[in-house]
Amino acid sequence: MFQSLQGHLRQRGLRALLVVADAATDPDLVPFAGPVHVRRCFFLLPAEGIPRFGYFTPMERDEAASTGLAVLTPDQLDVPRWTAQLKSEEERLAAALGQGFLLAGVPPGTLALGGHCAAGTLYGACRRLAADGFDFVPGHDLVRRFRKKKTEAQAASIRAAAEGTCAALQRVARVLAAASVGEGSLLRFEGELLTTGRLRREIAQELARHGLEQPDGNIVAAGADAGVPHTSGSSERRLEAGEAILVDLYPHGGMFADCTRTFCVGEAPAALREAHGKVLEALLLSHQRARPGVLGSAVEEEVRTFFRSAGYPASRQEVRGFVHGLGHGVGFELHEEPTFRQGAEPWQGGLEEGDVFTLEPGLYDPEDGWGVRLEDLVYLGPDGPENLTPLPYDLDPKAWSR
Amino acid sequence: MFQSLQGHLRQRGLRALLVVADAATDPDLVPFAGPVHVRRCFFLLPAEGIPRFGYFTPMERDEAASTGLAVLTPDQLDVPRWTAQLKSEEERLAAALGQGFLLAGVPPGTLALGGHCAAGTLYGACRRLAADGFDFVPGHDLVRRFRKKKTEAQAASIRAAAEGTCAALQRVARVLAAASVGEGSLLRFEGELLTTGRLRREIAQELARHGLEQPDGNIVAAGADAGVPHTSGSSERRLEAGEAILVDLYPHGGMFADCTRTFCVGEAPAALREAHGKVLEALLLSHQRARPGVLGSAVEEEVRTFFRSAGYPASRQEVRGFVHGLGHGVGFELHEEPTFRQGAEPWQGGLEEGDVFTLEPGLYDPEDGWGVRLEDLVYLGPDGPENLTPLPYDLDPKAWSR
Repeated sequence: MFQSLQGHLRQRGLRALLVVADAATDPDLVPFAGPVHVRRCFFLLPAEGIPRFGYFTPMERDEAASTGLAVLTPDQLDVPRWTAQLKSEEERLAAALGQGFLLAGVPPGTLALGGHCAAGTLYGACRRLAADGFDFVPGHDLVRRFRKKKTEAQAASIRAAAEGTCAALQRVARVLAAASVGEGSLLRFEGELLTTGRLRREIAQELARHGLEQPDGNIVAAGADAGVPHTSGSSERRLEAGEAILVDLYPHGGMFADCTRTFCVGEAPAALREAHGKVLEALLLSHQRARPGVLGSAVEEEVRTFFRSAGYPASRQEVRGFVHGLGHGVGFELHEEPTFRQGAEPWQGGLEEGDVFTLEPGLYDPEDGWGVRLEDLVYLGPDGPENLTPLPYDLDPKAWSR
Repeated sequence: MFQSLQGHLRQRGLRALLVVADAATDPDLVPFAGPVHVRRCFFLLPAEGIPRFGYFTPMERDEAASTGLAVLTPDQLDVPRWTAQLKSEEERLAAALGQGFLLAGVPPGTLALGGHCAAGTLYGACRRLAADGFDFVPGHDLVRRFRKKKTEAQAASIRAAAEGTCAALQRVARVLAAASVGEGSLLRFEGELLTTGRLRREIAQELARHGLEQPDGNIVAAGADAGVPHTSGSSERRLEAGEAILVDLYPHGGMFADCTRTFCVGEAPAALREAHGKVLEALLLSHQRARPGVLGSAVEEEVRTFFRSAGYPASRQEVRGFVHGLGHGVGFELHEEPTFRQGAEPWQGGLEEGDVFTLEPGLYDPEDGWGVRLEDLVYLGPDGPENLTPLPYDLDPKAWSR
């Protein structure tokens, strides 16, 4: 399982990969240790030899064992001794890591370093280890390369998150379909003016029902706010008939999912309707093209050409038209490989079996006050491509229940 | 506002405090920049001079401005140039930080380093800056010292989180009060066997209604699981009448809250009932004692003495009796200052106006298969101590609605 990664380590002359994490939920650690409840811990993969999982609190014994990895226990790491003898956290961390290197047979030299930590403690610990001959280079790319291809269990976790995401978008559609249009085109729901904040509460409750949370928030943006791709939208905003309501959800429950739909209650303006049609065409085109063996950047380029031929600007430097990338990998983090960027390394940009990624064409016109994005989550599984977010695409929320 | 912190910097001969964060939600950054939506960013407080907030993406302009701090924009930090010229992330980060030091008038020397980052990138960037004469020592303690005393706005955010936490515990009490006792003393609710997983779903939905999430999870532990203070409890566990059901919630919504109650449906065993009574006495005693000017460790010691006089062991080395600390500060992180530990520095252990902390006496008997903990969240506000979690303490959930 770790042979290809160990090959990369040897190729680069690195002694080991070290992932140090403040919690086992760290996206650099989960690919190796799985979902366990452990606080500060580390994963150590020597270029030659077996991987180890180190932890610092005896109470976490059972959780650590459930990783299935050979463990380095607090006793083996001499944690009680360091706690008694050393005053600062960075000294203790350095001493325990050094003991771990010794036990795992990792000699002084250069190690690849991944994980996420308290910056000052980490820097102080690495500086101390440097005095013993251990140097560190960033190892995040190695980890990202390793975690690009999802296992079936990881794909199942993403699928479960995608199902909850779909349920939340269905609930948004039901609320919008049930809304009435009052004075000044304002939407009303259950006797109140309908706000983005109300939609957000409905979304959060539906996601909670599915065991999902939103560590990175969400986008619920209406009208001109929808015209700027990354505006998350004020929660006091009252929703109106005839405007674009863009809902982009990217919740987490073990793994991330990501899906966007754009709604419009009542009659949609012609410009929005036309753009929606073109975005849907672009999405269906992307679904056809995004196959193992293809470069993400090639699919994105084809979508840009499609939008240009339809009369829309399609440059990342513009604010109008198709102004962002076509998609991104999703899994341990919301944004990971594969990438659709031009000029990416082949391992980053090549679509392969096991990849999970979004396809999210969009068109925006901030001056005219609208934006439309449709985003599906795709898994290139062993049985072929799978759309993990098989929802309606309609602007009209009433069409969702038909 | 930052004068005392700058005084500490000068006292230690440090040029500045640098907090580098992968997102502005970093608990080391929020105390300075407030709750804003910015990805990678940094806070730089020179020992002499004004504080700055640096960010890397032009799109985040408005969010950065809303911190109220003088900003270092991507253009000022020369981000476009580094992106074009430098290949690796750590080189770019180092170059942008170096430019920030120059603009903020921070000369080469030693800086205190806080925040949480990708370990390899951070270490690589600091190593590069070291070549230009910048050294770093851990600055987390400085940040924790600064954020110990909560502002009224921060206390209000904790109070809001505590209200949602109380609502979730009330909902647990309602479910347990409505449960019937079936075969083998198993609890039934809405036609199904009641599990800890079902309670967890009810909790998550109620918290979501209040805009709260559970990044650190929760504890819903029954029977023997409740007898071990930090067992989070399997979600398949079927709940029974006559056993302790310990529910410890510590959700986050801008700031953390933390509250525990212990329930028992039906007749509680005598040992559990007696322990519950003593724990409640200990909690009320703690509430009386935890006042500005008092050492947390002194209150904890008094509670240990109380438990011992009631015939229970009260040592952190035991598994039976009162086996953990009396409480901990709560706010930007779930565990911060003040501390109740013996031997803490005076700034860490001294209770002061503005502190928010838990009081959480408990008694456990893993062999006899029960545990009871009652935890309140206290704010030593300008108008005196305030219990932020004014819930019933009853074991019997039916008593909660009386």
